[in-house]
Amino acid sequence: MSSIFSGTALRLSVFGQSHSEAIGMTLDGLPAGIPVDPEELQGFLNRRAPGQNDWSTPRREEDRPEFLCGLKDGRTCGAPLTAVIRNHNTRGKDYEQLRILPRPGHADYTAQVKYGGFQDYQGGGHFSGRLTAPLCVAGGIVLQMLKRQGITVRARVLRIADVEDESAFASSVAEKQFPTVSDEAGLRMRKAISDARREGDSVGGIVECVIRGVPAGIGEPMFDGVENRIAQLMFAVPAVKGIEFGAGFAAAGMRGSENNDEFCLSDGQIRTRSNHAGGILGGITDGEEIVFRTAFKPTPSISRPQRSVNLETMREETLAITGRHDPCIVPRAVPVVEAAAAIALSDLILGGKKAWN
Amino acid sequence: MSSIFSGTALRLSVFGQSHSEAIGMTLDGLPAGIPVDPEELQGFLNRRAPGQNDWSTPRREEDRPEFLCGLKDGRTCGAPLTAVIRNHNTRGKDYEQLRILPRPGHADYTAQVKYGGFQDYQGGGHFSGRLTAPLCVAGGIVLQMLKRQGITVRARVLRIADVEDESAFASSVAEKQFPTVSDEAGLRMRKAISDARREGDSVGGIVECVIRGVPAGIGEPMFDGVENRIAQLMFAVPAVKGIEFGAGFAAAGMRGSENNDEFCLSDGQIRTRSNHAGGILGGITDGEEIVFRTAFKPTPSISRPQRSVNLETMREETLAITGRHDPCIVPRAVPVVEAAAAIALSDLILGGKKAWN
Amino acid sequence: MSSIFSGTALRLSVFGQSHSEAIGMTLDGLPAGIPVDPEELQGFLNRRAPGQNDWSTPRREEDRPEFLCGLKDGRTCGAPLTAVIRNHNTRGKDYEQLRILPRPGHADYTAQVKYGGFQDYQGGGHFSGRLTAPLCVAGGIVLQMLKRQGITVRARVLRIADVEDESAFASSVAEKQFPTVSDEAGLRMRKAISDARREGDSVGGIVECVIRGVPAGIGEPMFDGVENRIAQLMFAVPAVKGIEFGAGFAAAGMRGSENNDEFCLSDGQIRTRSNHAGGILGGITDGEEIVFRTAFKPTPSISRPQRSVNLETMREETLAITGRHDPCIVPRAVPVVEAAAAIALSDLILGGKKAWN
Amino acid sequence: MSSIFSGTALRLSVFGQSHSEAIGMTLDGLPAGIPVDPEELQGFLNRRAPGQNDWSTPRREEDRPEFLCGLKDGRTCGAPLTAVIRNHNTRGKDYEQLRILPRPGHADYTAQVKYGGFQDYQGGGHFSGRLTAPLCVAGGIVLQMLKRQGITVRARVLRIADVEDESAFASSVAEKQFPTVSDEAGLRMRKAISDARREGDSVGGIVECVIRGVPAGIGEPMFDGVENRIAQLMFAVPAVKGIEFGAGFAAAGMRGSENNDEFCLSDGQIRTRSNHAGGILGGITDGEEIVFRTAFKPTPSISRPQRSVNLETMREETLAITGRHDPCIVPRAVPVVEAAAAIALSDLILGGKKAWN
Repeated sequence: MSSIFSGTALRLSVFGQSHSEAIGMTLDGLPAGIPVDPEELQGFLNRRAPGQNDWSTPRREEDRPEFLCGLKDGRTCGAPLTAVIRNHNTRGKDYEQLRILPRPGHADYTAQVKYGGFQDYQGGGHFSGRLTAPLCVAGGIVLQMLKRQGITVRARVLRIADVEDESAFASSVAEKQFPTVSDEAGLRMRKAISDARREGDSVGGIVECVIRGVPAGIGEPMFDGVENRIAQLMFAVPAVKGIEFGAGFAAAGMRGSENNDEFCLSDGQIRTRSNHAGGILGGITDGEEIVFRTAFKPTPSISRPQRSVNLETMREETLAITGRHDPCIVPRAVPVVEAAAAIALSDLILGGKKAWN
Repeated sequence: MSSIFSGTALRLSVFGQSHSEAIGMTLDGLPAGIPVDPEELQGFLNRRAPGQNDWSTPRREEDRPEFLCGLKDGRTCGAPLTAVIRNHNTRGKDYEQLRILPRPGHADYTAQVKYGGFQDYQGGGHFSGRLTAPLCVAGGIVLQMLKRQGITVRARVLRIADVEDESAFASSVAEKQFPTVSDEAGLRMRKAISDARREGDSVGGIVECVIRGVPAGIGEPMFDGVENRIAQLMFAVPAVKGIEFGAGFAAAGMRGSENNDEFCLSDGQIRTRSNHAGGILGGITDGEEIVFRTAFKPTPSISRPQRSVNLETMREETLAITGRHDPCIVPRAVPVVEAAAAIALSDLILGGKKAWN
Repeated sequence: MSSIFSGTALRLSVFGQSHSEAIGMTLDGLPAGIPVDPEELQGFLNRRAPGQNDWSTPRREEDRPEFLCGLKDGRTCGAPLTAVIRNHNTRGKDYEQLRILPRPGHADYTAQVKYGGFQDYQGGGHFSGRLTAPLCVAGGIVLQMLKRQGITVRARVLRIADVEDESAFASSVAEKQFPTVSDEAGLRMRKAISDARREGDSVGGIVECVIRGVPAGIGEPMFDGVENRIAQLMFAVPAVKGIEFGAGFAAAGMRGSENNDEFCLSDGQIRTRSNHAGGILGGITDGEEIVFRTAFKPTPSISRPQRSVNLETMREETLAITGRHDPCIVPRAVPVVEAAAAIALSDLILGGKKAWN
Repeated sequence: MSSIFSGTALRLSVFGQSHSEAIGMTLDGLPAGIPVDPEELQGFLNRRAPGQNDWSTPRREEDRPEFLCGLKDGRTCGAPLTAVIRNHNTRGKDYEQLRILPRPGHADYTAQVKYGGFQDYQGGGHFSGRLTAPLCVAGGIVLQMLKRQGITVRARVLRIADVEDESAFASSVAEKQFPTVSDEAGLRMRKAISDARREGDSVGGIVECVIRGVPAGIGEPMFDGVENRIAQLMFAVPAVKGIEFGAGFAAAGMRGSENNDEFCLSDGQIRTRSNHAGGILGGITDGEEIVFRTAFKPTPSISRPQRSVNLETMREETLAITGRHDPCIVPRAVPVVEAAAAIALSDLILGGKKAWN
């Protein structure tokens, strides 16, 4: 696999399988001296953790990272920072039947082809959504660093099934357990989730992320621009099938005169009148809000019977997935999107080349 | 900048500015012995070249690459392959006025902030769409390699302005000058482009790419899966603002029971009944067609007056862009999308780790 | 820091500090299905472990790695492989005095400058020789893989202080506790170590490594040839100050007619009559033994009084290092050299590009 | 191959073959605004160019780089900087006989195995020493940048055959055509070269490099420390077979009390009394001179008859190399060593992580 990311300044290693001894991450390249507040980190991780509400899997994991190294007296010490989370609440037998009957929409089949039967199939192995927990540990740490620089990264549920949140983003979503701007839309989304669950089905959705406070001049085009980097990291999150920045796909239907963001002066600062670019021009930040949306497919694990092919007998069979599964992972994906975006951005900020002087 | 891409097996360096002596590329990591047919390559490059029809800029460039090294007797020799294209038809004076008055929607302003005034602003410098020519040289070469392995990469214009092509892809688009499945839709798209041009405006669109013949098992998750890799390269193409794989954003509105692609047997092979996954599960190919769509914003260079800020006087001014510009870059972007996808895929195929035996 | 290595096929993350909760490593990019024998691995690690004889520090650590993930039923499963070793026998108070009085020959001072006082100074932190334990875990695993391919990596103590081993290498050193070809030279080396220890001093030495069974054609010049890669990894080992391949520095005094290895036929195979090249021509293996030598400086931690500068008072002071230290790390470095070489070679073998066919 | 180097901040692509249309390099990641003086660069390149004296090959090449892009008004513009040198004085027929009869000490045989006969064998192809010209273009540019920061990189011939220069380095070598401290030793070295040439043979030697003005705190251990990085780049230079830093191999014979560099105060600055470490502790600079030595094997191309194996008939044959070859490449390697060291150092300085504040 290729689960070590080498960025401009940061390197991130994510390891573990759904049912291995532990999962974890190593983050290398952070400057020494960055304060890490474990309480604040835990609060961030709790937003992703399952089993805390009515719309996610009842599997309960503490997701309490143990820091093995890289911190000294509450600050980064310059050495690689490693944290692990033990896997406790694993129920291997749930998955025994799936070894030879790949679940539609999952990586069971592609892993079998690629890893020749040696892959860890239990709980999806390294492909499990559980691996977003270490991603959130890394993200939670750099989010604290960014916050000290006046940068906030905030995401919300923009859509679930056919329910859309208000179009205008509001940072007030940060405090909400179910992060939508409109509480009414949020209630309808939760109902859509409950309905799907009751019918043994699942729903997908869209997460929108807004990053404020990033100065102009961040990003390394052509291949490591802000969009390249965020996209590369976002597709590491299971179930992500699309990403768009600013007006995104809607820009395809616009005229240039509509879509172009004219420059203006505001309090003596160069700003743009609109933000269809999502804060990024030529792969480089322009000082406006960075805005992007990520599409999540519906959770593939559903209890409704599905057809599959038995890899041993090579015959078609009907599969009924049991076990504990989220009918919708979108609400829990909100902090994951923030984490991945924060890692991408921190990397570009820390590694940013400046003009010579 | 970061215009050297380091993949799993391939490294690609893209260099040049719109008005520098030359632009070009170096591709390293190709096995020795791959045949390169220069005629076929030129045919591919001509699909991107400007000035050959009524919907693009009248600036005419030959885009005829000179190979400096890396080939011997028509085959790769294992050493880095470098090709350059001389810049001839440059009209520097067109851009003099733009030095201090950044064009909305362009990287003029962000480059100024990042490179402190040292950037080459002429014609957009390294940010120019002209830099997609060397990308196509690299892509055209690996496309030939892929074709010998039975892999075809084909894109089409799915949408321009508010005109959509037929939903079903057909490989017959390959032969068409204006690559849409429906010729009638193509005609309406061309009209939308002409209308925009006449009004001093521009339009955007969507390119859809379909890759056939890729075996199951290609891709290196988490960070170098097929989607991560294609997305990272696609955002190196100017004007791209979004990408989605398979059902993409539409999957957000589906139920799991709809979106999941059930496995079935076809001629003794494991296949899927539908292809909402776009041929990719867990970042790894499943043997179905790889399908993705890329959103292009409307060309930012329009002749209609726009507001901007003079960087010297720090006052708002009105800007009128003259010079030669495509009212829509989407048709010319079709081979560029194919090139970027082919590079991403070749890299993962060449560098693919297999199970041990 | 930069403690994640990204090779051609493998990625290696080494983490931990001398006195952190744990040290460990993550190895990513190994094919699935490689058998890992934990007994054999432990035997390899024991060769590096301290406190097992009269020539090393009495600090006793079990160096028993716990595998957190990446293995299934005794084989690699394709996912990143992570192993950690808990730090138990730590005596933090030994180092309190050193916080402001940097030890000559150590990284105490350079770490202070670079990490601004936030570094973990205890026991040398991430710079400690203890970090070679996770390097040996990674190396021990790939050594097993190489052995199955008929490749052996064997090192010996070639020199300690002024005592030299026999010039001709013999693989019989593999079974010896003190790995020299000549037992008599080994005894004299051990005496040199004892003498140094008794006098509160230390000695350095040279380790020679011989790799057999590597086929011709491995290595990726210019920048990832066999020599580049082995050298890059070898200088990650504390105390290494030089490396030479084949005749090495002695080649500087030779004539071309002496140094060139003429090609000949042996059992129908192309071989060379001599091996001054150390098995590498143009960065690529030629099928002969790979031979290189690594110079280790004497352990900087000595109990004899030394002068240093107090970083708080900015006055010169005399420093007396107490605590437990090896008077010579060279014997324990032998498996470390094997490990680093095995990682370098495995990476190039797994990632090797072949000619096209 | 792997002829694109990805460092901490810089990426360097070196391309071309001895007899291809051109050779060249792309350097990416330099900040915008760095002045490049072409005269000064040419002066540097002339130190490497052949045919200018009595000790090198009479093949004359201008080695006058054409900059294709990356510069604007004499300064870097932030975009990749590409320069090419055309190959003119090529005599392909010299090499026809070598296609099937590999030269001892050259990469002819290993290239044949690796690239399956598709390699460019003429003049050694990509393995030719001629490829050090683009390395010197890149090095010459960053040397100018370093000089503006008060950093000088100076190398000298320390040894040729059995003739040694004075042990103490003196920066006066910079002005000399034959860079030795002792002119008398230089004369004897030139005689050793002439003797070898007359006898149809060649000699090797050692180049010593001294870097002054580097502040403490540069280098990214474990894998990208100063030694790792310099070593990785130095082994990209043909004929290099060894490298040592500071006391190097001699440290192996020292006691710790001898080898350790005690800290002291000098003009209120922390310095060391000696410099056996060669300015590097734990992979990080300590503010002292960086000192290293590189061993070059004798030029493998000699006119004396040598035995080889005909790859077509698979019979041993006698080979007599004709054509133009340096009897000793060491004097011309002096600027190459400076170039490679300057690239390594610039990369670490530009990409250097600092403590957080």
